Amino acid sequence: MSGPWDKRPAPPRGTGADRRPPRAPRPAAVRDETRAPPVAGTRDELRLYGINAVQAVFERRPDAIRKVYLAEARIPSFKALLAWCVKHRLGYRVVTEDDLDRLAASQHHEGIVADVRKAEPWPLGDWLRGLPAGPASAIWLDGVGNPHNFGAILRSAAHFGVSAILLPPQGGLALSGAAARVAEGGAEQVPLVRLGNVANAIAQLHGAGFSLAATVVRGGDDLFAARLPERLIYVMGAEGEGMDAQLAAACDTRLSIPGTGAVESLNVASATAVFLAQWRQRLRRD
Amino acid sequence: MSGPWDKRPAPPRGTGADRRPPRAPRPAAVRDETRAPPVAGTRDELRLYGINAVQAVFERRPDAIRKVYLAEARIPSFKALLAWCVKHRLGYRVVTEDDLDRLAASQHHEGIVADVRKAEPWPLGDWLRGLPAGPASAIWLDGVGNPHNFGAILRSAAHFGVSAILLPPQGGLALSGAAARVAEGGAEQVPLVRLGNVANAIAQLHGAGFSLAATVVRGGDDLFAARLPERLIYVMGAEGEGMDAQLAAACDTRLSIPGTGAVESLNVASATAVFLAQWRQRLRRD
Repeated sequence: MSGPWDKRPAPPRGTGADRRPPRAPRPAAVRDETRAPPVAGTRDELRLYGINAVQAVFERRPDAIRKVYLAEARIPSFKALLAWCVKHRLGYRVVTEDDLDRLAASQHHEGIVADVRKAEPWPLGDWLRGLPAGPASAIWLDGVGNPHNFGAILRSAAHFGVSAILLPPQGGLALSGAAARVAEGGAEQVPLVRLGNVANAIAQLHGAGFSLAATVVRGGDDLFAARLPERLIYVMGAEGEGMDAQLAAACDTRLSIPGTGAVESLNVASATAVFLAQWRQRLRRD
Repeated sequence: MSGPWDKRPAPPRGTGADRRPPRAPRPAAVRDETRAPPVAGTRDELRLYGINAVQAVFERRPDAIRKVYLAEARIPSFKALLAWCVKHRLGYRVVTEDDLDRLAASQHHEGIVADVRKAEPWPLGDWLRGLPAGPASAIWLDGVGNPHNFGAILRSAAHFGVSAILLPPQGGLALSGAAARVAEGGAEQVPLVRLGNVANAIAQLHGAGFSLAATVVRGGDDLFAARLPERLIYVMGAEGEGMDAQLAAACDTRLSIPGTGAVESLNVASATAVFLAQWRQRLRRD
């Protein structure tokens, strides 16, 4: 039996094809291990893995799901997803742990891998137009490249109700399967916003009432004593190099997390969690 | 030319041999790439990598250093360490990036790898006897196994001045090279304490005036509203399973970090940073 993704039927006509992946394959037999699955998605796809990462996409963007691979032991907990796959003629396949390791290029797949349509980052203007008035926080990631840190930041951002993650034009930071797995579903909760020109972005954010706080290892205002503004962007720099000097200069304040000095700094994801926790407490005090 | 670690001269007699590694090899030639270095240390050794991890051992426990491998580009920043090696007849070797990748079993070596004598964890009684009176905090790691999380927790613990990390008798969590690299030097700053029987450990900690706070994903007292005790142990459970039920029941309080509920929880290292930041603020308020 050939693999289910060899055959690509034309999408059904006049039946809401825009809600279905354009190249939806036939449903796979539940047991078809005769052929090694492909190792990479297409350019507009992301290969996700991990229970919460896949579950979060199914809950919020089920139309984005294109293919599913899972271990037999995962079938009971993903019955609703598999029923969706059958109904929408999407391929799913029960595979071995080795196959999952190879598909995910990681052993952290927790028995499930899915190819999903990428969510396009928002343009800044669109995001700002949709944002309600009142308190809001966002994180500007200037040079954070490690997917583990990016994923942990997404998870904290979802936990603390951050309104967006802002991604600079350079650097090319984009959501990866590894980051989404570490985010444990948080990647589907927090909008990603792609910035254009930095000076314009800062002007737009100021225009929307945001203050920008450069987070620095030392020499900033004491986070625990500072009065945080109602609308706040925390600008997080790369570990080591720190943030871009021009960007830091354009910020309205500089904030540091007081400590012993025994290590140079906190890990960037740990620091982000501390900054966000402080933001949440500030909201409560007002 | 054979490798410098083939030859193991007897330690010099009557010259403070206890301050020298017992099997100190001859100093290596600075350029000797003719032989692949060994890939693992002995049982009482730890293979460290990363600039800050190696630098921290050299600053605090130079006698623990046994072998050093480094990239040529790292020589200028480790001159003091190399001079120490020459003086104490320790081998060091300039190797290629590929060699470092293989020695560290990681690409995150930052150009330097060192085999060092492990620091023995403290017995609980010894640690408590040496602890000054007054405010103190510690972290009990119940089931945290991931070296990335362990390393990030060590780094936060060093930043916020935690008095110790307590390791349960089961689980076998021990410092690895990966954890020490992520800790960025924090592993040398915070004592590790190995617990014996859990009930005895809790009694000893209570006897020393500590309260134990079980950190739970939900249902605990609100961390941001709680009054934290002067001497506090945060008990951090494994992600997923959470902490051992009996241990949780034996704790004096339960604490949770309030959030949106959009994700199940924070990453354990991020959560630890938030708990520690709150402890530090509490100290300041009193």
